[in-house]
Amino acid sequence: MKQIEQHACFGGSQEVWQHASSTLGCDMDFAVYLPPQAKQGPCPVLYWLSGLTCNEQNFITKAGAQAYAAQHGIIVVAPDTSPRGEGVANDEAYDLGQGAGFYLNATREPWAAHYRMYDYIVQELPALVDAHFPTTTARGISGHSMGGHGALVIALRNPGMFRSVSAFSPIVAPSQVPWGEKAFSAYLGDDREAWLEWDATALVAKATERLPLLVDQGDADNFLETQLKPHLLRDACETAGHPLTLRMQRGYDHSYYFIASFIGEHIAHHAKAMQG
Amino acid sequence: MKQIEQHACFGGSQEVWQHASSTLGCDMDFAVYLPPQAKQGPCPVLYWLSGLTCNEQNFITKAGAQAYAAQHGIIVVAPDTSPRGEGVANDEAYDLGQGAGFYLNATREPWAAHYRMYDYIVQELPALVDAHFPTTTARGISGHSMGGHGALVIALRNPGMFRSVSAFSPIVAPSQVPWGEKAFSAYLGDDREAWLEWDATALVAKATERLPLLVDQGDADNFLETQLKPHLLRDACETAGHPLTLRMQRGYDHSYYFIASFIGEHIAHHAKAMQG
Repeated sequence: MKQIEQHACFGGSQEVWQHASSTLGCDMDFAVYLPPQAKQGPCPVLYWLSGLTCNEQNFITKAGAQAYAAQHGIIVVAPDTSPRGEGVANDEAYDLGQGAGFYLNATREPWAAHYRMYDYIVQELPALVDAHFPTTTARGISGHSMGGHGALVIALRNPGMFRSVSAFSPIVAPSQVPWGEKAFSAYLGDDREAWLEWDATALVAKATERLPLLVDQGDADNFLETQLKPHLLRDACETAGHPLTLRMQRGYDHSYYFIASFIGEHIAHHAKAMQG
Repeated sequence: MKQIEQHACFGGSQEVWQHASSTLGCDMDFAVYLPPQAKQGPCPVLYWLSGLTCNEQNFITKAGAQAYAAQHGIIVVAPDTSPRGEGVANDEAYDLGQGAGFYLNATREPWAAHYRMYDYIVQELPALVDAHFPTTTARGISGHSMGGHGALVIALRNPGMFRSVSAFSPIVAPSQVPWGEKAFSAYLGDDREAWLEWDATALVAKATERLPLLVDQGDADNFLETQLKPHLLRDACETAGHPLTLRMQRGYDHSYYFIASFIGEHIAHHAKAMQG
């Protein structure tokens, strides 16, 4: 573990660390915000998963989350969105390869060797974070767009691991939209049945834990109709009896201006669940 | 005036506009945040001046100011830091030419033709803002680093124009530090007497209006000893009897993490002065 950035921020510390990931077979950077309360004792951890084209920087520089994390005493961990490096498979498109890991374990070459973001987020990263920072066992998870998909899928597949889950503008049904179809075809192959293990709308149907889902979606989001389709999650939750709070936010788009506007409410939601 | 960005943000609207600047002789982009209160009636305007290498994007994407501007009902205008474009003189260094206008009127070629950021900020931009947005006559000004220098100089040179002024990590004495010596030599020539018209520590000595200065400075700022030297402003204010609140903030550096941590207090300060 090598610290590559450290900045005082809202009385705490915004840091970026680098480590050699055994899961992903490459060096990975991740960001961690330590609130002022972490100097006194352990704090719950909110994991944030970013969207397509992002790395560990976007959320920490643009969302303004540190103000609320400092207020509530929450550690926030923001990893990169894919394996990286010269030896890691890539694609020229913005929505495949580096920057577009989709938080799954790829089964098809050339992707399978490194693209195991699911195992990284579920196993390696929390173990690393718990070993190096003053964490309690309480965890929450959230994310944006592809990262909202990741947060929902990871929470639904791991009952008991998280006290809370939320998402901004998530890709709720990747099996049914162009971004997901392209990525899943490449990473998982053509067996659409296998895709359902990575699709929140399918996972809700068989969830054994009814962890409430909080989803914010802007109604001026350019990707709403083609890629996001939150009504598919609403329908799946209604059918399964899974608790969902889906808030359509009037006039908001897909940008970090939207995330910044509501991240305070999300962090309060997670803090209540993690500290309650 | 052409709108080139619009995002809902904290119930208001974060916008970027482009116009042909007659002062600068080029197209200029500037950002404006309209709080929700601007839908109901006119609001005071806080002008924000960014630092070296920045354009109109840095502050609006990284400072998290919109949360506080929405809370207090303040319009925030963030211009670019220099003229831009192929026909505009430039330099390969980050601290001269485009991105480094220093908020002055250049008198030496090749700079004098376009580098008139002082006139732009004092005259053209406020006239444009007042003509197109629901503003009151109350104005405040703030900025960071080179922009902190700009805010202090512009407020001190224009008594009555601003109700409030503040700065983060300002270059308080450009005549006496490498960044300022390089820029002033290029833009203004070798007559150091002429430089004093653009140096806050010199302007404080002859100010006719005792507008209080609020300055935040991180004590872990890499530029503190070489470029910023806030004690020179403290000394000048003490000699002149000019009101100054200089807060040395422990552990904070020169980054936007520092600005984000205290911009809420600055906006509250400006709001009180502008609405009081």
